[in-house]
Amino acid sequence: MDVIGKLRERAAELADLSHVMALMQWDQEVMLPRGGAAERAQQFATLSGIVHRRAVDPALGEFLAAAEAAADRLDTVERALVRKMRRGYDQNTKLPEAFVTELAALTSRALPVWVAARRDNDFASFAPLLSRLVEMNRRQADYLGYDEEPYDALLDCYEEGLTAREVRDCFSVLLEPLRELLAGVAPAEEWQPRVPFVEAEQVRFADRLLGLIGFDFERGRQDRSAHPFSTGLGRNDQRVTNRYAPQSIEFIFSALHEGGHALYEQNIGPELARTPLANGVSLGIHESQSRFWENIIGRSRPFWQYCYSLLGEAFPAQFGTLALDDFLATVNAVRPGLIRVDADELSYNLHVLIRFELEQALISGELAVADLPAAWGERYRDYLGVVVPSDADGVLQDIHWAHGSFGYFPTYTIGNLAAAQIWHAYRRFDPDWAATLARGDFARVGGWLATNIHRHGGVYLPRELLLRVTGEELAPRHFLGYLKEKFGR
Amino acid sequence: MDVIGKLRERAAELADLSHVMALMQWDQEVMLPRGGAAERAQQFATLSGIVHRRAVDPALGEFLAAAEAAADRLDTVERALVRKMRRGYDQNTKLPEAFVTELAALTSRALPVWVAARRDNDFASFAPLLSRLVEMNRRQADYLGYDEEPYDALLDCYEEGLTAREVRDCFSVLLEPLRELLAGVAPAEEWQPRVPFVEAEQVRFADRLLGLIGFDFERGRQDRSAHPFSTGLGRNDQRVTNRYAPQSIEFIFSALHEGGHALYEQNIGPELARTPLANGVSLGIHESQSRFWENIIGRSRPFWQYCYSLLGEAFPAQFGTLALDDFLATVNAVRPGLIRVDADELSYNLHVLIRFELEQALISGELAVADLPAAWGERYRDYLGVVVPSDADGVLQDIHWAHGSFGYFPTYTIGNLAAAQIWHAYRRFDPDWAATLARGDFARVGGWLATNIHRHGGVYLPRELLLRVTGEELAPRHFLGYLKEKFGR
Repeated sequence: MDVIGKLRERAAELADLSHVMALMQWDQEVMLPRGGAAERAQQFATLSGIVHRRAVDPALGEFLAAAEAAADRLDTVERALVRKMRRGYDQNTKLPEAFVTELAALTSRALPVWVAARRDNDFASFAPLLSRLVEMNRRQADYLGYDEEPYDALLDCYEEGLTAREVRDCFSVLLEPLRELLAGVAPAEEWQPRVPFVEAEQVRFADRLLGLIGFDFERGRQDRSAHPFSTGLGRNDQRVTNRYAPQSIEFIFSALHEGGHALYEQNIGPELARTPLANGVSLGIHESQSRFWENIIGRSRPFWQYCYSLLGEAFPAQFGTLALDDFLATVNAVRPGLIRVDADELSYNLHVLIRFELEQALISGELAVADLPAAWGERYRDYLGVVVPSDADGVLQDIHWAHGSFGYFPTYTIGNLAAAQIWHAYRRFDPDWAATLARGDFARVGGWLATNIHRHGGVYLPRELLLRVTGEELAPRHFLGYLKEKFGR
Repeated sequence: MDVIGKLRERAAELADLSHVMALMQWDQEVMLPRGGAAERAQQFATLSGIVHRRAVDPALGEFLAAAEAAADRLDTVERALVRKMRRGYDQNTKLPEAFVTELAALTSRALPVWVAARRDNDFASFAPLLSRLVEMNRRQADYLGYDEEPYDALLDCYEEGLTAREVRDCFSVLLEPLRELLAGVAPAEEWQPRVPFVEAEQVRFADRLLGLIGFDFERGRQDRSAHPFSTGLGRNDQRVTNRYAPQSIEFIFSALHEGGHALYEQNIGPELARTPLANGVSLGIHESQSRFWENIIGRSRPFWQYCYSLLGEAFPAQFGTLALDDFLATVNAVRPGLIRVDADELSYNLHVLIRFELEQALISGELAVADLPAAWGERYRDYLGVVVPSDADGVLQDIHWAHGSFGYFPTYTIGNLAAAQIWHAYRRFDPDWAATLARGDFARVGGWLATNIHRHGGVYLPRELLLRVTGEELAPRHFLGYLKEKFGR
């Protein structure tokens, strides 16, 4: 077997095992009975240890060196495979097995505690675990190494090469225009249906929406969890989750958001399956796809020109007497609030900025976990002008920290910027985009995304991919232009 | 670390991985989107290979030899641990890794094909896979070794030490009395509800029944699948499945049956967790627990004296006007039929006998897979007097062969015999058993089973356990006595 064949064999084994671990996590959040959490954590730790030993196997290092020595005989995909496997190998060999096992057990144990803490508004019960997670992330940064600050090492895990300095630069371009736009918009009243939704009907409509945007239910499913997420258990087993509340239409936008992630994965070229290239290229580009469907398409007039009658049929008591214009005003209402995932497009990135600042402070040690709720409340008052009434609606709202993920949040803003830039490119491709969407032809934009972005998986670097699709590197002006067109005078 | 500590560490790793594989199988039958089947099979094969390499690790063999040399310093549980791990190690070292990987991939691939074949009544589409499964079971018997016939090696996998000769002897004691009893009972009409059941209400009642017999929903769950089953993803994560049809009350008895299996596992002593002793002692004894709750308790008058009003409240349209006596006649109706899992207590073991004979013939090579449907139909005519109208209701009805399990069916009859023998012992312990059950005190019998059987897990051999609980070895007369008391003149 040639060296690429050997690498592919190793890649397939690691891909299979990572999909098994994705199943364990999915099950933990969707199915696992409460009493099973401790055992699941042990199982997760056991399998993580085995995976880690395979991932740092010196033979793999030798195959990689041999492939790199023969790089000029490799094609584009093979070169990308070697690059991606090298990155994984180096990351893994820097982390001792005991550390990996401990972190896996800790995050698995932290999740149900976070669920209970959020339900009971009891930050204190989660704080000791959060402290340990912060400490372990700091150790992880030390193991991985960084040039400027520890946080860079964590950012790099999610968005290759991104630094805290770049993120700060980005926010410094965005901050003032966002504040100006926010100041120019009158805060809207919160809309609530006069009749509560029936959950089974919400589920049915969320499934229908996923189908409309191209989600393949033969190769995926939608379930319930405390916090919506999407995960891949294989190219042909993409799972999204949603949550349903009787007074809320957020399930619609969660379906579009998680569906956007899942479409990316469902459309990756089959020839990349069972390799590390069979994933979205980065979290930022991934998020661009979810925000594209959730916001740019999913809150647009043309989309609802087609879908609003379907919504009215599904929920006559809630929407039968609401005009399309009023519905559009509702789903595009600007109202600085407490919850990032419910935030309007203007305030959203300020939520991300707050977490970015707090995460950096936690990791650098400037901020203690015990002081986190107070620091959180202060920033929400300063940036968004809102008072945080409870930790459940504050520091406990997101699942990421319970997952042990620090450095993840900035990718949300990268995603928003990239989505607007991609949208700009699509409109050059389809100048009749409004008519296309209004007649329910979502396959046109879906096909364009699949062809230009999704099918490539991780073959290109995020920067290269964006350049290929849009003709330029990441530029915040497209996002600001999109917001001005939508929310400006 | 002493040698028992080392063995416990290995046992914990293998237990964790086997629970991960149980999750993968559960998910495959309950959740997996159709398109994901091929990838799941690859993932299963990958993990099976890893588990196999760990299970045959020569270091494990050395620990076992050292522990065996020090056997006189071990306590009962430690000795049982060494015995059980030795059995597993010997079984595994006899099977080459390539064989294990191939069998795992084959069974994972066969399952969805069986589901479709059963749905479409298309035996031909499943036959090639079945032929390969038979052939691989034959190879497995050769690898494992046997004294008298290849089928013995397969039987031994499910019921330690059981031989085809012993099973034949057992059936030869049962056959005539069963035929006599059957001949003496007038076949009953099939009962159907006048109003079809609503699935959500069936689910709710099935959950309630499980709770009544002691199933702990904090440590388990009930879901839907094509064929009801129970599986353990950990001591505190026991999952049962059920199926629901609008005209059928079988879901009640499936819940009790799978619940009986799950109670066994939920009640195993926590000190045995993460060892191979944390399982029921054998499939036969396991089946004794499911049949105990399904039939001996679940079709008894005292049980329904308590539960029938709950059933009437849950389903007033179906049972509101049906007298308890008529209900009891219905659920104890004798009607030789096509489907083992729906069979009455008199004909059930004749279904098992048919499969036992056919399996032996397939494994020995006397019967070709292509001739299986005809042989099946012939025996159903001869033993049960019924005509098999379709393969879906014939050879395709059970999931076991698609799972690659041959030698499993006889344990169903062992289970029926043991259940009646255990019931005999319980009635000596609680002479007021009828009053106990009629007042809804199912915890008394549940606690007795937990204390005398469940908590021991696999510490004793099946034969020893039965002797401890009932004072004698397996004796078919208790089962015949139970049937005569219930169905005789």
